[in-house]
Amino acid sequence: MKKHNFSAGPCILPQEVLVKASEALINFDGLDLSLIEISHRSPNFVAVIEKARHLVLELLNLEGKGYQVLFLQGGASSQFLLSAYNLMKDQNGKAAYLNTGTWSSKAIKEAKLFGELAEVASSKDKNFNYIPKDYIIPSDVDYFHTTSNNTIYGTQMHSFPEFNGINVCDMSSDIFSRSLDFSKFDLIYAGAQKNMGPAGTTLVVVKESILGNTGRTIPSMLDYQVHIAKDSMFNTPPVFAVYTSMLTLEWLKDLGGIKAIEKINNQKAQLLYQEIDRNPLFTGVSATEDRSKMNATFTLNNESHSDLFDTIWEEAGINGLNGHRSVGGYRASMYNALTIESVEVLVNCMQELERKA
Amino acid sequence: MKKHNFSAGPCILPQEVLVKASEALINFDGLDLSLIEISHRSPNFVAVIEKARHLVLELLNLEGKGYQVLFLQGGASSQFLLSAYNLMKDQNGKAAYLNTGTWSSKAIKEAKLFGELAEVASSKDKNFNYIPKDYIIPSDVDYFHTTSNNTIYGTQMHSFPEFNGINVCDMSSDIFSRSLDFSKFDLIYAGAQKNMGPAGTTLVVVKESILGNTGRTIPSMLDYQVHIAKDSMFNTPPVFAVYTSMLTLEWLKDLGGIKAIEKINNQKAQLLYQEIDRNPLFTGVSATEDRSKMNATFTLNNESHSDLFDTIWEEAGINGLNGHRSVGGYRASMYNALTIESVEVLVNCMQELERKA
Ligand SMILES: Cc1ncc(COP(=O)(O)O)c(C=O)c1O
Ligand SMILES: Cc1ncc(COP(=O)(O)O)c(C=O)c1O
Ligand SMILES: [Mg+2]
Ligand SMILES: [Mg+2]
Ligand SMILES: [Mg+2]
Ligand SMILES: [Mg+2]
Repeated sequence: MKKHNFSAGPCILPQEVLVKASEALINFDGLDLSLIEISHRSPNFVAVIEKARHLVLELLNLEGKGYQVLFLQGGASSQFLLSAYNLMKDQNGKAAYLNTGTWSSKAIKEAKLFGELAEVASSKDKNFNYIPKDYIIPSDVDYFHTTSNNTIYGTQMHSFPEFNGINVCDMSSDIFSRSLDFSKFDLIYAGAQKNMGPAGTTLVVVKESILGNTGRTIPSMLDYQVHIAKDSMFNTPPVFAVYTSMLTLEWLKDLGGIKAIEKINNQKAQLLYQEIDRNPLFTGVSATEDRSKMNATFTLNNESHSDLFDTIWEEAGINGLNGHRSVGGYRASMYNALTIESVEVLVNCMQELERKA
Repeated sequence: MKKHNFSAGPCILPQEVLVKASEALINFDGLDLSLIEISHRSPNFVAVIEKARHLVLELLNLEGKGYQVLFLQGGASSQFLLSAYNLMKDQNGKAAYLNTGTWSSKAIKEAKLFGELAEVASSKDKNFNYIPKDYIIPSDVDYFHTTSNNTIYGTQMHSFPEFNGINVCDMSSDIFSRSLDFSKFDLIYAGAQKNMGPAGTTLVVVKESILGNTGRTIPSMLDYQVHIAKDSMFNTPPVFAVYTSMLTLEWLKDLGGIKAIEKINNQKAQLLYQEIDRNPLFTGVSATEDRSKMNATFTLNNESHSDLFDTIWEEAGINGLNGHRSVGGYRASMYNALTIESVEVLVNCMQELERKA
């Protein structure tokens, strides 16, 4: 049965990417060898990682602007640590963080090991259902850290404050989904497993000039400069995850890039939020102006409808709609590879509930 | 054309594993969803990682002995760092390392950031072509670190010194290949990409009682105890690499486990080393008593034969035979999934050279 995959991550990937990845596991590049049994230093794989790197810069419009692209391991969770390790000064290190959810909070926790932290604002008072707006970023911090999209709570930063220093952003759950002036950020990181590819690699896009200024000794595997010097091959890279990410980036480019996908993502989000608002049985969780176009969180106004609703959407082939335990209700993740048809199926389920309840 | 894959890693995996992994990318567990687009917290994937964990303990004969199994990211190179971070005391930390090659040297380099290091012996004087034997391990060190198999130089520890303290071993390139009393080790780590699976996950097998005694604050992602508490799901695991490792472990178990594969590995190694010794055109690189059964390094006695030899083995469908740049010559990696037929093909090529040269 055709599935409509609303999983929050790992999540839906383009079908043609899955088919190509599946084929490469048997015979990659016509070598009569599997993708995963050749040397990562073979010309065939080096071409893959170079292409992936190039596609990232091209899609983000960051070519020739002093940025380096890395494909690392360890997830975005490791970047909570690496960003602080590589950017916070050894002496009197200080950084500012905007706390918009679980992931920001975890990033803050790891960075505290390296210096003083200024939490410039937090939306914890309302279970992170909005993005704080009026706050002051101390001018003397080593960097300012934000989370562009809050996967769990369904909020998204639709604008970013102007900060003159180093801007760091965890874009794990909305990278490649919308147009932004990415050159306003000095360090962007993202676990692959939303819009870039399968779990197992982490994208780091970093302006090279911000590195090497902390006075800190950094272990090799945690040092961005070490990985840059070796083109992400300081050690064995996660070959499969990088290859499948490259395929996904290629798919996005062929589709017309970020501008094209943004249009579709806007349509999907509008369709679903419109129904959440219109349908008297449902209410959105997050503040209207901060709604995420990637993860829509909503609840049933009457809990007693949940069994019927769950039966309806499960029978329609929908998958991954349950909300995160810290929010409850439902979460519809509408990443790049999800089609508008899948959103229409969900909207139909919501309307079916309205008729039947 | 049928390939004979002697790559040093990533390397050959069992054909049936590749086929199953390829199928799971299209439809996993009959879910009508790809393995890489479902939640890592779904019952289907949780069952995979639990099974993989269990298979590791079973194959290593470590069940019920206080060991924990982790599937992490970052490669064995990250474990150079994590082993020291988790085991070296914060105050007056001291560790002993046996230096048997590039990987040991890199492990030593990372550990030096955490305390005093005693290099108990080194074979660097002879480009690591042997395993040092007579050395003293200081009794007051926090742990003693060895590298069981030296992938680059083709040496292997056929016995390990008795050390009463904590024993740490990098088994990246020979784990699951031979019977050992694994319970003599307190911490074993291995990048997956030799005998366990594809690049992208790292196996850690640790005796839980050795943890938590350093007095050091460890960042979450570097803390074995954090990962143990979350069953390797503190953050998103590398789903594909864990799944394919599970398939490979299952294949090994079905084949009869380590005892069965060891017999085959012994036959393969004997066949090749016999030819290296017999054939007047070739010489083995490493000391006879320290020869690795996983990676056989050898050279041509007459460099002028190399073009002809390269043509012969390439035409026979052999892949990945070139030696590492720091050794030169040839390296035949004979990991678990390589069949004896492939070794016979190589031996035939060596004899063909003898006839034609
Ligand atoms: C915004 C955000 N940051 C960080 C993470 C953690 O990523 P990982 O599991 O790759 O460490 C997630 C995971 O969903 C996320 O959504
Ligand atoms: C014995 C040994 N240790 C460590 C490593 C490094 O592993 P990784 O590339 O997974 O970091 C290797 C890689 O080949 C190895 O053979
Ligand atoms: Mg969040
Ligand atoms: Mg409503
Ligand atoms: Mg070595
Ligand atoms: Mg000889």
